[in-house]
Amino acid sequence: MIYADNAATTKISNAAFEKMLPFLQGQYGNASSPYSFGVKAKHAVELARQQIASAIGAEPGEVFFTSGASESNNWVLSSINKGHVITSSIEHPSVLNACHMLEHKGVDVTYLPVSGNGHIAVEDVRNAIRPDTKLISVMLANNEIGTIQPIAEIGNYLRERNILFHTDAVQAVGHIPVDVQKLGVDFLSASAHKFNGAKGTGFLYKRPGISLPPLISGGEQEHGERAGTENVAGIVAAGYALWENISDMSAISSKLTALSQTTVNGIHSRIPNVIVNSQEGNHLPGIVNIVLDGVTGESLLHLLDLKGICVSTSSACRAGRDMPSHVLMALGLTSRQARSAIRISYGRYNTLNDAETIVSAVCNAYNKILKAKK
Amino acid sequence: MIYADNAATTKISNAAFEKMLPFLQGQYGNASSPYSFGVKAKHAVELARQQIASAIGAEPGEVFFTSGASESNNWVLSSINKGHVITSSIEHPSVLNACHMLEHKGVDVTYLPVSGNGHIAVEDVRNAIRPDTKLISVMLANNEIGTIQPIAEIGNYLRERNILFHTDAVQAVGHIPVDVQKLGVDFLSASAHKFNGAKGTGFLYKRPGISLPPLISGGEQEHGERAGTENVAGIVAAGYALWENISDMSAISSKLTALSQTTVNGIHSRIPNVIVNSQEGNHLPGIVNIVLDGVTGESLLHLLDLKGICVSTSSACRAGRDMPSHVLMALGLTSRQARSAIRISYGRYNTLNDAETIVSAVCNAYNKILKAKK
Repeated sequence: MIYADNAATTKISNAAFEKMLPFLQGQYGNASSPYSFGVKAKHAVELARQQIASAIGAEPGEVFFTSGASESNNWVLSSINKGHVITSSIEHPSVLNACHMLEHKGVDVTYLPVSGNGHIAVEDVRNAIRPDTKLISVMLANNEIGTIQPIAEIGNYLRERNILFHTDAVQAVGHIPVDVQKLGVDFLSASAHKFNGAKGTGFLYKRPGISLPPLISGGEQEHGERAGTENVAGIVAAGYALWENISDMSAISSKLTALSQTTVNGIHSRIPNVIVNSQEGNHLPGIVNIVLDGVTGESLLHLLDLKGICVSTSSACRAGRDMPSHVLMALGLTSRQARSAIRISYGRYNTLNDAETIVSAVCNAYNKILKAKK
Repeated sequence: MIYADNAATTKISNAAFEKMLPFLQGQYGNASSPYSFGVKAKHAVELARQQIASAIGAEPGEVFFTSGASESNNWVLSSINKGHVITSSIEHPSVLNACHMLEHKGVDVTYLPVSGNGHIAVEDVRNAIRPDTKLISVMLANNEIGTIQPIAEIGNYLRERNILFHTDAVQAVGHIPVDVQKLGVDFLSASAHKFNGAKGTGFLYKRPGISLPPLISGGEQEHGERAGTENVAGIVAAGYALWENISDMSAISSKLTALSQTTVNGIHSRIPNVIVNSQEGNHLPGIVNIVLDGVTGESLLHLLDLKGICVSTSSACRAGRDMPSHVLMALGLTSRQARSAIRISYGRYNTLNDAETIVSAVCNAYNKILKAKK
């Protein structure tokens, strides 16, 4: 099998798995219990909090563990009860749907457009700001096309302005340098399973001094800001996996860039009319999104699946919805083009051989489908 | 070590651990991805959903996986925006704090008292109902004292009345028979780590036809009712652990009753003035809550910890709060008595030898503290 859907989820690193294992077996104490067996679990949680904080330029007390970025995103967005919110048209469904719920509450939401390459213009953000704007939520890197947004520039502009600033950094954390100070954000969301941690654990960074009512209230866990028995094993894996990914970041990043280039060049040489989405500007190294006109992404995905290759048509969080990708539509693609897209997303465990195999398999599948249609 | 704090959390059963393990290693596909590698994960999630549904008398489509019962409780309670809610004064903090948040929204909340044995009177529920009562939330079994509430009687009374009925069944599911039809509830919350599953996974049962806006919106996971990449490993462990606990329930229950009796009788024979909370009426088999007048629960817990014995003073979800237990205060205990309480909670892995060792250790610790005070 070749797994090239790392934007959907990633394999837990072997080292992070080894670190979490004791907390699924003998070390099962509740991290909020005061006896030694609980305190050991608490120490493991706090070590992970330090690892995560230092990875994003934050203090440990500013990191709150959640069940994942969907929770973190909803936590921040649902706290707005009136006024105006600004977001982009290519956000993850957990931001967009939370915004739709805000609209039901009477909050006004502006969905900013993006350029043909998938970039938001800082000027558009500035122009959208109103006296009643409470929150701006813009993703750091897009999950379908990999564009990196100018978060630091927006953050810089917002300094000293009384508007909260949130970024969904799910695709960025562990993959590109992320520093909450440089980004100038008040909130940042991430999920461990996107950086070789386990599913079911994520976090929210919250700038100190900002009041945010709990989404899940109850026990005194997470400084009373997020209730629920700590998922110790998942938290331990998150801390270690992020530390590990950051230690190896530049080497992995160079490799991913090479794999992406091999893929784009290889497919382009055999299918000249391939459209590569979001090719220009700041971009994640591992995500390749291409349109192969005349075939559907779904049929390609099916043939690749038969060869043991995992790629996706869009986000796994959109699976089950028979709609063309809202991200690709926002780039200005037609719905037919959007339906002809596939996303290949490489991760730390992919090799050059994987990319070469994928190039052949994609081109063969494409030709096979075209031939069958004739 | 003797672990007797199973109401705080439990060890993952070896069999459930073996079932979840592949999904933390090779089988890391996203359950929402359409290729075979994702579909395998999806099948595992759906098998777990069937196991859980059949364990509580529900249909699979009525079970929604969450990060735990704190989330499930908040999900239900936070959906109320006006009118009146009825709950009990001995609920878990995740229900009580969610109720406090409702009060901030302008919802009126009635906190029903309990008898000296910790039982709610069905008549009190009936009398508290008003024309604007939207929701009644009463726990099935209490986490500190183990009393089982008359949920089926309340549910029966509420049939055909237009009031939603929720029960926090965290301490009950996997430990006593739970059937949502017999209980007559619309919503039921549970956490896997209380029934020998993993921390970070729980579920909400929701009766079909009842509309409940998502707490965490976004992707189409969980029929679009609860977004976020499925925690496949945790869900698999939850399904298997519950199936396993229910298969062995009557044998485990008999054993736990014996351990509890040994504990109460043993301590009573050496410390005659011990107060046993919630001794009468319907009760969980494994929870023993006692007041040892003249010492603090905290000092007892510390001495027991030094002997490698894990018990608690109250709920782990209250840890860090220097307040006497609200549950024990609701029974009519003084704050001094409430501070002198310890909770011993047995689980499927405890033995008679554990109970006998605990009796000796508790009595020795009690006498040691009293002697030191003289």
